[in-house]
Amino acid sequence: MAGVDQGAVVDLLGVLAYAELTAFDRLAEDARLAPTLDGRAALARMAAAEVAHHDRLTARMRELGVEPAAAMAPFVAPLDAFHDGTRASTWLEGLVKAYVGDGLATDFYREVAAFLPQPDRTLVEEVLADTGHADFAVREVRAAMAADPAVAGRLALWARRLVGEALTQSQAVIAEHEDLAELIIAGTGDLAGVGQLLGRITTAHTARMGALGLST
Amino acid sequence: MAGVDQGAVVDLLGVLAYAELTAFDRLAEDARLAPTLDGRAALARMAAAEVAHHDRLTARMRELGVEPAAAMAPFVAPLDAFHDGTRASTWLEGLVKAYVGDGLATDFYREVAAFLPQPDRTLVEEVLADTGHADFAVREVRAAMAADPAVAGRLALWARRLVGEALTQSQAVIAEHEDLAELIIAGTGDLAGVGQLLGRITTAHTARMGALGLST
Repeated sequence: MAGVDQGAVVDLLGVLAYAELTAFDRLAEDARLAPTLDGRAALARMAAAEVAHHDRLTARMRELGVEPAAAMAPFVAPLDAFHDGTRASTWLEGLVKAYVGDGLATDFYREVAAFLPQPDRTLVEEVLADTGHADFAVREVRAAMAADPAVAGRLALWARRLVGEALTQSQAVIAEHEDLAELIIAGTGDLAGVGQLLGRITTAHTARMGALGLST
Repeated sequence: MAGVDQGAVVDLLGVLAYAELTAFDRLAEDARLAPTLDGRAALARMAAAEVAHHDRLTARMRELGVEPAAAMAPFVAPLDAFHDGTRASTWLEGLVKAYVGDGLATDFYREVAAFLPQPDRTLVEEVLADTGHADFAVREVRAAMAADPAVAGRLALWARRLVGEALTQSQAVIAEHEDLAELIIAGTGDLAGVGQLLGRITTAHTARMGALGLST
């Protein structure tokens, strides 16, 4: 791992730190859609956990002598574009977005983290740890589908739109960040390795859709 | 303090727990208006601290055998009405609202907390502790006014609107909660005591406006 460029490490910390801020933002927004005060408090609690993750990443950037705002800046436009293009309009859409969308992103970041040197590898793995959102989302979505099976079709379409938009934006991010692209290709070994990485991410995505009871 | 009705304690915990949720909400909303990523992260961090306070209050309600959602329910409409009626449209309005509006509310709750038995008195005092927002707001507002003195007049008008709306809603809350009204009257001694309490709150408000450099 000695050959990893610090530019790639900073890129990954930067994109993750901004992703945590937008996750905070989105969970806070979705909290307002909650049908109960308990659900609203549960989402607010998850949003708060994202802020703590954000703070750990920015503390590490400062340790590396990097200004967090500068490291995050290149990722503001693509991540905002993703969220603006997939703004949840119902409580259930918000939950599916958090579970399916964040699940995809987390899998991707975790694959990349495996190529990082320590202590950044462990730091990234820890901030990617689930904040309890997954179980909560699965429970709420399944309960809603049990009450009204027609919900399933709409949510499956919504999940497909999320995946499409996520692919578009992640390709844009990687295309503009050579260090990150090189890290992934060097880490996986070659293009076949990149294909296997995408295969693992797809398998995990299919499993999450299954957990929600949605077809891919 | 043995004579304090549990209804009044639960009312105060309920209104505060919902106030913390709405504070989270509003700080999260205002974070999006931040002109810099650092400012946005600072507000997100303060919002996260409000969630931690909310959790301490709901934990105490459960200890008392009270369902938090039920205790908060009567305060949802008046607090939402206050926030809907005073939605900040700029970063500076949001900061003034947080500093001036929350300052007023905090002073009022702290006065009422003084009449509570332990351990609730200490709990309420602790969750009312400033989360760093005050200094941050004063610094940002003063810097903006130094750059553009015309801002001061608009913000002073905004602060007056906040106070008017806060008085309207707090009167509505107290009118509908006899336990709370009795607690305040019994705690202050008589109507003259209530007058002195309001005098203390007004003095502190004037000091906050002065710290911002705004006229009352």
